[in-house]
Amino acid sequence: MNSVPPMADIDLRRASLCQLLHWLAAGRVQAKALSEVYLSAIERINPQLNAYVTLSPVALLREQAQMAEYRRRDGVIGRLDGIPIAIKDNFDVAGWPTRSGLPTGRVPEYDAHVVARLRASGAVLTGKTNMDEGALGAVTDNPHYGPTHNPHRQGYTAGGSSGGAAAAVAAGLAVAAIGSDSLGSIRIPASYCGVFALKPTQGEISTRGMTPAARWLDTVGLIARSVDDLTVLLQVLAGYDADDPRSRRRRVALSPPDWEPGKLRCGVLSNLPDRGVQPDVIALFDATLAKLDRELGERRNVDFEDWDFPRARRAGLLLMEAEMQRTFEMQLADTEHPVSPRFRQMIDYAARKSAVDYADADRVLDTAALKMRRLFAQIDVLVTPTTPQGAFPLDGPVPDSQADLTSFANLAGCPAVSIPMGTLPDGMPVGLQLVGARGSDLRLLELAAVWSATLDAAPEYPIPV
Amino acid sequence: MNSVPPMADIDLRRASLCQLLHWLAAGRVQAKALSEVYLSAIERINPQLNAYVTLSPVALLREQAQMAEYRRRDGVIGRLDGIPIAIKDNFDVAGWPTRSGLPTGRVPEYDAHVVARLRASGAVLTGKTNMDEGALGAVTDNPHYGPTHNPHRQGYTAGGSSGGAAAAVAAGLAVAAIGSDSLGSIRIPASYCGVFALKPTQGEISTRGMTPAARWLDTVGLIARSVDDLTVLLQVLAGYDADDPRSRRRRVALSPPDWEPGKLRCGVLSNLPDRGVQPDVIALFDATLAKLDRELGERRNVDFEDWDFPRARRAGLLLMEAEMQRTFEMQLADTEHPVSPRFRQMIDYAARKSAVDYADADRVLDTAALKMRRLFAQIDVLVTPTTPQGAFPLDGPVPDSQADLTSFANLAGCPAVSIPMGTLPDGMPVGLQLVGARGSDLRLLELAAVWSATLDAAPEYPIPV
Repeated sequence: MNSVPPMADIDLRRASLCQLLHWLAAGRVQAKALSEVYLSAIERINPQLNAYVTLSPVALLREQAQMAEYRRRDGVIGRLDGIPIAIKDNFDVAGWPTRSGLPTGRVPEYDAHVVARLRASGAVLTGKTNMDEGALGAVTDNPHYGPTHNPHRQGYTAGGSSGGAAAAVAAGLAVAAIGSDSLGSIRIPASYCGVFALKPTQGEISTRGMTPAARWLDTVGLIARSVDDLTVLLQVLAGYDADDPRSRRRRVALSPPDWEPGKLRCGVLSNLPDRGVQPDVIALFDATLAKLDRELGERRNVDFEDWDFPRARRAGLLLMEAEMQRTFEMQLADTEHPVSPRFRQMIDYAARKSAVDYADADRVLDTAALKMRRLFAQIDVLVTPTTPQGAFPLDGPVPDSQADLTSFANLAGCPAVSIPMGTLPDGMPVGLQLVGARGSDLRLLELAAVWSATLDAAPEYPIPV
Repeated sequence: MNSVPPMADIDLRRASLCQLLHWLAAGRVQAKALSEVYLSAIERINPQLNAYVTLSPVALLREQAQMAEYRRRDGVIGRLDGIPIAIKDNFDVAGWPTRSGLPTGRVPEYDAHVVARLRASGAVLTGKTNMDEGALGAVTDNPHYGPTHNPHRQGYTAGGSSGGAAAAVAAGLAVAAIGSDSLGSIRIPASYCGVFALKPTQGEISTRGMTPAARWLDTVGLIARSVDDLTVLLQVLAGYDADDPRSRRRRVALSPPDWEPGKLRCGVLSNLPDRGVQPDVIALFDATLAKLDRELGERRNVDFEDWDFPRARRAGLLLMEAEMQRTFEMQLADTEHPVSPRFRQMIDYAARKSAVDYADADRVLDTAALKMRRLFAQIDVLVTPTTPQGAFPLDGPVPDSQADLTSFANLAGCPAVSIPMGTLPDGMPVGLQLVGARGSDLRLLELAAVWSATLDAAPEYPIPV
């Protein structure tokens, strides 16, 4: 028998996915024990954090973990065998309601593509996480399910719309989480909660079974506790799906990492005050670039002078609102369980806009795609703060600019990674964003891994006990 | 010196592009003489046919042909050296007005991508061809420039919107023509005029410098007098263009021809009467399939029962009309040179539709893409008549269904070829359409070449002298 002492619960909840895979493979922890640690933590801690809106039935969790054990004994080991993973409430999980933050939903018969892939690789589904109503927002102060609190400070926003997902990962209530990102919904909460996030190239991960927000902006996003974890998840989840119209047989394989460190061409977003970035965030960003000085290669400023941030925001929102009128047709007609007045107001805005307005908004995607193609012919990576601000109090005003630094990657279909860059003077974390050309996901992740190691800036995960 | 007698004008005007390239290379005709034959035919015949709305200045034509001669003497031979080619009026040719069938336009500084490629390969631009106003129609009875007549019968439509292009090629006033195809605008006139046409996979040929109709439906289309001519033109014009948002680095090279004749899986559109196909066309289609019997491989019926043709038509039109409100903003505001009441009425329709309607129409593209993916997992090629009817009198009623058999290829982004399948009892030609999976352009062309040889059904080109 193994004489190594068993892992403490707190270590299991703080460890990265890659670390846990190692411990599971080495027998230092059993899948069943691991899932019970997460299950019991969720039961104890979720009531004050409110990261989950649907919990996996205890019996199911045990059964999933048990199956992982059996497989392991038989020598067949799934890539994610026994790893507790949370799912945002806008993905279908067979038999669980998909509500997408609205008061009602439907119980799907089939798993979303990514959920099926997670199950097939042995992951243990912990439950479904809280989000902004219909994914239209970046605060996760849901009118029907209450706010998710930032694990770093009760009463502060976890960001959104995948706020529950980011909070669960930061607080040790899930090892990783699957969310959606249509204008920044994965990266914003990752920035506020001090965790790692990937929004992949559009079409790399199938969106089948994800509630559509705006089909040309939607991507499946990943949240985890290290860059390596994101890479493992991407490899499990990426690939062609004939049933997703935007999934394409890859033109080239995801570009393999092949940076030549001395020759990196790194663009840095300049004019940050004009972009509404808060002074504290600018100071931290500058300090971060200084720490990374030797790793940034040849630096050049990218001013985005010709990019109209508010116009891009309105265009993205109009595309979402117009589609949602159809996506949530049933819920919008349900007078017994009404959507919030704010949500209805946003959706109705689209109904008053004309087809010509929609076509105009849609043209912004072309502009963004060409702009990014030209930019990434000159640089390898663009670096920005992930968000113009850190987390703010749930009872305070909501800034307009939350998604301004994240949304252009969606409009252009480019991949983007967010890694923690440290904490602001108020003690709250904020993220550093890396954006690359379409298909450069693996390159970005390798760069993010190197930079993360240099920065060593991931805040201690605020694991409540 | 060459003792072979010079070619007769009529032969030069009836020959295919490939045949002419051979004669030019062999010295049986000089580029300058060839362009003069076309030039003089255009001057003589265009007044009654009305295929061209702008003619290349004589001086320019001579200069182009002279340059081809010089290059040939220096041993540098462009792929299309000396070949007279016509351009539809919705492509930019530097220095010539781009009017797109509207009363006014602008004079562009730069050539459209395809025009620049043609020039670079030595082609001689003969002029710009007539079209439906704003490409919204399939008759080419233009309210500002008059109707283009079908070369097979004066007073009959040449089809549209690339009616001038098809008529010019059929009447020996251009060797080939470049047009646009957003719902069938290349294939419909090719069907009515008895010529060959290719609408390539979406994104294979750059649409930069083409007046946008509906960006996700638009393709550059080719009209010529043989399938081989289409293949040569595709090879000259296809490729990645970083400045076209929908141009993509190829996922795979254009699938090379690799049919195994015995193993072809051929889908045949059934229920033709329900699709509004005229009895005479059905009889000709059946006779054509009988002639091709041994070449169709394993045949199966494709009924398209779940495809709502009128809904697809309305969706495609709404996408076009909404975009055109912006594309033709300047012309719509010009009260001195007003657009036609019919055109304004169609465009205004879009302004009265909401953003939600546009999103609904846009979703039809997803449905079409998935339907075609599933279909082409089961068959290699889908065969249909190109049009439900042959050419009709210009003063008669216009059928609604003209684009019903062509538009689904645009909605799904698939390639399609039209070849002549013979003449109807009234003496007018009609086309056979081959549709394939995205990227299968070269396969379709090879198949079309074999079938054309078997059918030998291209009507004698009605070359007026």
